[in-house]
Amino acid sequence: MVKANQSINPRVGVIGAGKVGSTLAQRIAEKDLADVVLLDVIEGMPQGIALDLMEARGVEHHDRQLIGSNNYADLVGCNIVVITAGKPRTPGMSREELIEINAKIVKSAVKEAVKHCPEAIFILVTNPLDVMTYLAWKVSGLDPSRVMGMAGVLDSARFETFISLELGCSIADIQTLVLGGHGDLMVPLPRFSTVRGIPITELMETETIDRLVDRTRKGGAEIVQLMKTGSAYYAPASSVCLMVEAVLHNQSRFMPVAGYLQGQYGLNDIYMGVPCKLGYKGIEQILELPLEKSEIAALRESAEVVRKGLEMVESLVGFD
Amino acid sequence: MVKANQSINPRVGVIGAGKVGSTLAQRIAEKDLADVVLLDVIEGMPQGIALDLMEARGVEHHDRQLIGSNNYADLVGCNIVVITAGKPRTPGMSREELIEINAKIVKSAVKEAVKHCPEAIFILVTNPLDVMTYLAWKVSGLDPSRVMGMAGVLDSARFETFISLELGCSIADIQTLVLGGHGDLMVPLPRFSTVRGIPITELMETETIDRLVDRTRKGGAEIVQLMKTGSAYYAPASSVCLMVEAVLHNQSRFMPVAGYLQGQYGLNDIYMGVPCKLGYKGIEQILELPLEKSEIAALRESAEVVRKGLEMVESLVGFD
Amino acid sequence: MVKANQSINPRVGVIGAGKVGSTLAQRIAEKDLADVVLLDVIEGMPQGIALDLMEARGVEHHDRQLIGSNNYADLVGCNIVVITAGKPRTPGMSREELIEINAKIVKSAVKEAVKHCPEAIFILVTNPLDVMTYLAWKVSGLDPSRVMGMAGVLDSARFETFISLELGCSIADIQTLVLGGHGDLMVPLPRFSTVRGIPITELMETETIDRLVDRTRKGGAEIVQLMKTGSAYYAPASSVCLMVEAVLHNQSRFMPVAGYLQGQYGLNDIYMGVPCKLGYKGIEQILELPLEKSEIAALRESAEVVRKGLEMVESLVGFD
Amino acid sequence: MVKANQSINPRVGVIGAGKVGSTLAQRIAEKDLADVVLLDVIEGMPQGIALDLMEARGVEHHDRQLIGSNNYADLVGCNIVVITAGKPRTPGMSREELIEINAKIVKSAVKEAVKHCPEAIFILVTNPLDVMTYLAWKVSGLDPSRVMGMAGVLDSARFETFISLELGCSIADIQTLVLGGHGDLMVPLPRFSTVRGIPITELMETETIDRLVDRTRKGGAEIVQLMKTGSAYYAPASSVCLMVEAVLHNQSRFMPVAGYLQGQYGLNDIYMGVPCKLGYKGIEQILELPLEKSEIAALRESAEVVRKGLEMVESLVGFD
Repeated sequence: MVKANQSINPRVGVIGAGKVGSTLAQRIAEKDLADVVLLDVIEGMPQGIALDLMEARGVEHHDRQLIGSNNYADLVGCNIVVITAGKPRTPGMSREELIEINAKIVKSAVKEAVKHCPEAIFILVTNPLDVMTYLAWKVSGLDPSRVMGMAGVLDSARFETFISLELGCSIADIQTLVLGGHGDLMVPLPRFSTVRGIPITELMETETIDRLVDRTRKGGAEIVQLMKTGSAYYAPASSVCLMVEAVLHNQSRFMPVAGYLQGQYGLNDIYMGVPCKLGYKGIEQILELPLEKSEIAALRESAEVVRKGLEMVESLVGFD
Repeated sequence: MVKANQSINPRVGVIGAGKVGSTLAQRIAEKDLADVVLLDVIEGMPQGIALDLMEARGVEHHDRQLIGSNNYADLVGCNIVVITAGKPRTPGMSREELIEINAKIVKSAVKEAVKHCPEAIFILVTNPLDVMTYLAWKVSGLDPSRVMGMAGVLDSARFETFISLELGCSIADIQTLVLGGHGDLMVPLPRFSTVRGIPITELMETETIDRLVDRTRKGGAEIVQLMKTGSAYYAPASSVCLMVEAVLHNQSRFMPVAGYLQGQYGLNDIYMGVPCKLGYKGIEQILELPLEKSEIAALRESAEVVRKGLEMVESLVGFD
Repeated sequence: MVKANQSINPRVGVIGAGKVGSTLAQRIAEKDLADVVLLDVIEGMPQGIALDLMEARGVEHHDRQLIGSNNYADLVGCNIVVITAGKPRTPGMSREELIEINAKIVKSAVKEAVKHCPEAIFILVTNPLDVMTYLAWKVSGLDPSRVMGMAGVLDSARFETFISLELGCSIADIQTLVLGGHGDLMVPLPRFSTVRGIPITELMETETIDRLVDRTRKGGAEIVQLMKTGSAYYAPASSVCLMVEAVLHNQSRFMPVAGYLQGQYGLNDIYMGVPCKLGYKGIEQILELPLEKSEIAALRESAEVVRKGLEMVESLVGFD
Repeated sequence: MVKANQSINPRVGVIGAGKVGSTLAQRIAEKDLADVVLLDVIEGMPQGIALDLMEARGVEHHDRQLIGSNNYADLVGCNIVVITAGKPRTPGMSREELIEINAKIVKSAVKEAVKHCPEAIFILVTNPLDVMTYLAWKVSGLDPSRVMGMAGVLDSARFETFISLELGCSIADIQTLVLGGHGDLMVPLPRFSTVRGIPITELMETETIDRLVDRTRKGGAEIVQLMKTGSAYYAPASSVCLMVEAVLHNQSRFMPVAGYLQGQYGLNDIYMGVPCKLGYKGIEQILELPLEKSEIAALRESAEVVRKGLEMVESLVGFD
C-alpha cells in the first residue's frame, strides 16, 4: 500500500546569519517554503533576527517557524542545509589566506551539520564557491547529487538584469545560462540566453553583448565598489532560495548549479557550474550541451582556477 | 535519529468535477499547495479540465500536476480527499429525496476512496452538509478528527463580505464566526465578529447587524436566485481550499468547521459547525466558547434539523 | 512639475460572462490587478458570479471590487476592455455562419463599449480571433496599438506544457513562440522555443518536436473532444490575464499577440500573431524576427485564411 | 466624461537606506506595489542596494524599478515618501540629545522631499515616532490626513506573535489593537485583540495576558538586547509596507496609525496611535472606540510623554 506523504513542515538549516543568511531565512519563510533554523556562532544575533522575522508574521501572515540558534543539534530534521558562513576577502588578504580561512569554517560546519541531519541536501554559498562545494562534498561523505553550490543562478540573474535594462523589456521574459566556475572566468553563453525564446544574438550587436557579459563577470565587484563596506546579499539569497524551492517542491527545474562532474564536458572529479535538473533528490541530471570549441576552452580555463584552489585546500586544510 | 521530512509533493483528491470541484482543483494547484486528482463518473470531463489546468501552467508557472480520472484507484497516496459530488436540490424535489440521492453518492464515494487512501483526511462539501459529514465519518471507519465538513468558513466569508460592504472597509480586517448547521438555522455570532479586533456590535446598529445576519443566512439562495441555473462555486471552493491549506501546512488555524461533537455545547454524537483548530492531523481541537443562553438555544435548534436528516439517512440508506 | 500618479484602482471590463469571462474576472481580481466589471446580456448571471467572487474575498483577502452588469454604461473608467462574448462553433455550423454570428456580437459590443470608455485598450478573445480583432479595430476607430487579440500566449502555453511533460521538467523554465493566425495553420517556432535558454532542437528529436507541434495546433480541439460539451477556459483566461497585467503594470513584456501588421513579415493591413512588446500604451513594438523561408511561407499561408475571414465579415456584416 | 485611471507605475520614496529602509524597499518592490527611490546621504550605498535588488529580479520576476539616489530631486512623482532616516539611541545618549539629532534630520528631509513631491503622502518611522510625525506634519505644510507615523502596526504584530506562540495557533487568525504613543507607555487593548473574532480575554488567564502585554511593550528592547549591535528591521519594514499597500491600493484598511488628533479621545493637536482607516487619500477616518476609563487614562499618560517630546523639539529645533 502506498503511504500518504507526510505533511509535517519541511525545515531548512541556514548556517551563517550574516546578510545573505538572514535574507535567505526571510525568503524561505516568507515564501512559505519551510521552517528555518538560522545558525551562527555569534550568540544572540541569530535569535534576534529570528524573533524579528517571527514578529513580521503579524503582517506577512505565514506560519513558518524561525529558530535562531548557536547549536548544531538544532539542525535535526532539516531537509536542506545551506552554508553561507565564511569571511569576505578584505584588502591585503591573499587568495590563499581566504581559502584557508573559509575552508576551515566550511569543513567544520559540514562535519557538524551532517552529524545531525545526515539525510539533508547541502547547498554551498561560501567563496571560492566551487572549491568550497568540493570540500563540503568530500568531508560530508554524501553522494555528490546531494551536495551542490550556488553561483550560476546568481550570475544568470545578473546577466538577465543587464539584458532587461539594455532592451527595456521585462525581466520575466529573459533566461540566460552562465556556466563555469564562479569568478572572473565564468562562462556566460549568449547563444543560450534568450528573450521569450529569441537568442539575444538576434536582438543585440556583438559589442553590446560583450559589454553585458563583461559587466556580468564583474557583477559582484560592481556591488562591492558601490557599497564599499559590504557585498551583495539580496540577489544571492534569491538565487539560493530558487534552488531550495526546486528541491523542496521537487520541481525538476533546470538551472546552472555547481555540480560534481564525472566526465561531462571533458572534466572529471571537480565541482563547477553546469546546467542541472534539481528535484527532491538533489541534482537529478547534469545536462551536456553541445558547446563550441571556444566555449569548451573557456570552461577548461575556468576549471584550472578551481583545481588550483582545490590543491590549496588539500595542502592547507585537507579533505578528510 | 529524527528522519528528515519527505519532500515528495502532497496530493489532494477531489471527488466531483462540477464547478465547485474544478474551481477547488484550480485553487489548490495554483496556490502551489498540492498535486490534484480530479475524479468524476463522467468520462473525459475531469480529464479535459485537468488538461486545461495543466496548460494554464504555461502562464501561472506552478509545477503541480493535475490528473483527471474516472478511477478511484488514482486516489492512492492522497493526503486529503474532498467530496463535492452530489446533486443540487431542484424545483419540486423534497428534502427527503435530496438526502437519499446524495447519501447514496457520498456513501459510495467514501467507501471507494477510503480503500485507496486510508490515511487521508476527508472534507465534505455535499449538502445537506452536516448530515453528509456524519455519514461519511460512519462509513469511513476513521477517527472523527479525520473527517470534517465545510460550511462555516463559507458562511463566515459571506458575513465578512456584507460587513465590509456596509462599513466600506477592507475585508482583510474582518473576522466572523458562524456556527451551527449549514442552512437557514446557522448561528452567526456578531459579538465574535470583528473589524481589526473591534466587535461589530461597537460599529453598527443592531438593526444593521440583523439585516446582514439575515442576508448571510440566505447567502446561498441569493446566488441561486441571481444565477438561476446554478449555485455558488467560487467562494465555496475558496473556503475548502483554506481548510486544505491549514491541514497540509499544519497551520493550527481556527475556523468554523463541521466537527464531531462529543458533549461540547451540550451536544453529542452529531456533526455541526463549531470553532476548530485544524492541522495536519485534522481537527486538533474543538473550542468551547462561553455562549449565551440564546446562542446555545439557537445551536440546539440547528442541531435538531441535523438530527432529522440523520434519521432520514439511517432509514433510507443506512450508516453501514 | 511632475504630477504624482493617481493611485485610484484600475478597472477592467470583461464582456461575456461565460466560462472564459468569469474565470478571467476571477484571475484579474484575485491577482489584485484591478476592479472588474463583468458584463453580459443575460440578466442576473454576471451579478451572481460577481457576488460569488466578492464573497470569496472573505478567504482570498483582496479588496478588488467585482461588478456584475447588463449595462455598457458601467464600463466607464475602464483601462482595458476584454471581449470574450461570442458563440462556439457547434456541429453542423459552417465557418461562414460562425463568422456572421460572432461578427455581429463583436461589432455591437465594441461600438457600445468604446462609447463609454474611449481611452481603453481592447483585447479580443472571440473566434475566429484574428478576424474579430481586425473587425474590433475597424469599428472602434482607435489607434491599432490599442486593439489586440489573444491567441499566441495560449498556443505557447500549450506548447510549453507539452514540452514540459515530454522532458519531465519544470514549466517555469520553458518559453516558446507560436506565431500566425489562431487555428490549424498557426506557426510554432521550435528554434525559438527554449528550456532555460536552450532551444528544444538541442534537447529533442525532430520527430518528437513534430509530434508536440501537432498536438499544439490541435490543442483546442483536444480539450473539446475530452469535455464534449464545452471548450477550454482556464488556460485561455490565464493567457488574457497575462496581457492585462502587462498593460496595467506597464511591464514591457514580449509575447505573441494578434497585432496590426503594416508591412512587417511582408504582410499589410491584417491582424495576426506576432511577437509584441506590451505596456500601458498597448502594443508598443512589433518585433521582426529573421525568419527562415519556410517559416515565412507558413505565416503567409496562415494569413490567407485570415484574409478569407475578413472578406466574409466585410460582405456579411461590414466594417463600418 | 470619466477619464480612465492612469496605469503608469506608482512610486514610493524611502529616505534612509539603513536596514529598515532597504528592507522596506525590498518589500515594496517584491510585492509588486511600486517603483522605489531609495535615498541616503551616503554615496554609493543606496545605489549598491538598489542594484542588488534589481539583480534579484532575475529570480523574483517582478518588474519594479529600484533607484538608489543621493538627490532629493529623484523623489519627483512619488505617491508616498517614507522617512526612516535617523539615529538610534546609543548608550549614554540622553533622550533630549536623540530628539535633537533626529528632529534635525527629519525636518531637513521633509522640507527637501515636499519640494519635489508636494502631492505625496508621508509616513514617518524615525523615533521618537509620534514626536517626529508631528514635526514632519508641521514643516510639510500638508493636510494632516497626508502625514502619519508607523508604530501601532508593529506593536500589534508583536502582540499577535506572542499570542500565537502562547496559544500554539496560526498568526493569520489573530488581530490586535495597540494604541497610544510608541514606547513603554503604549496601550495594548486585550479586549479588542482576538483569535478568529474571539477576544483573548476568553482564551487566556489575565496573568498570561499581562505577561504578553508586557513583552509587547518591551518588544523593541528585546530585539536590541539579542542583536546587541542593532535593532529590529524585518517586522518594522513589514508594518510600513502594509500601510503603503493600503494607501496605494486604496484599501480602506483599519490599522493603528499615528494620526493627528483634533479632539478624539479627549486629545488635541497631537499625533498618537489610534485606529485609522487608510486609503489613497491617507488617513480617511479616525475611529473613536468606546474606551474604558483606565484605557483613556493610559492614553493620556502616553500623550504626556509625547507632549514633552514636542516641547523639546520646539525649543531645540523649532517647527518652522
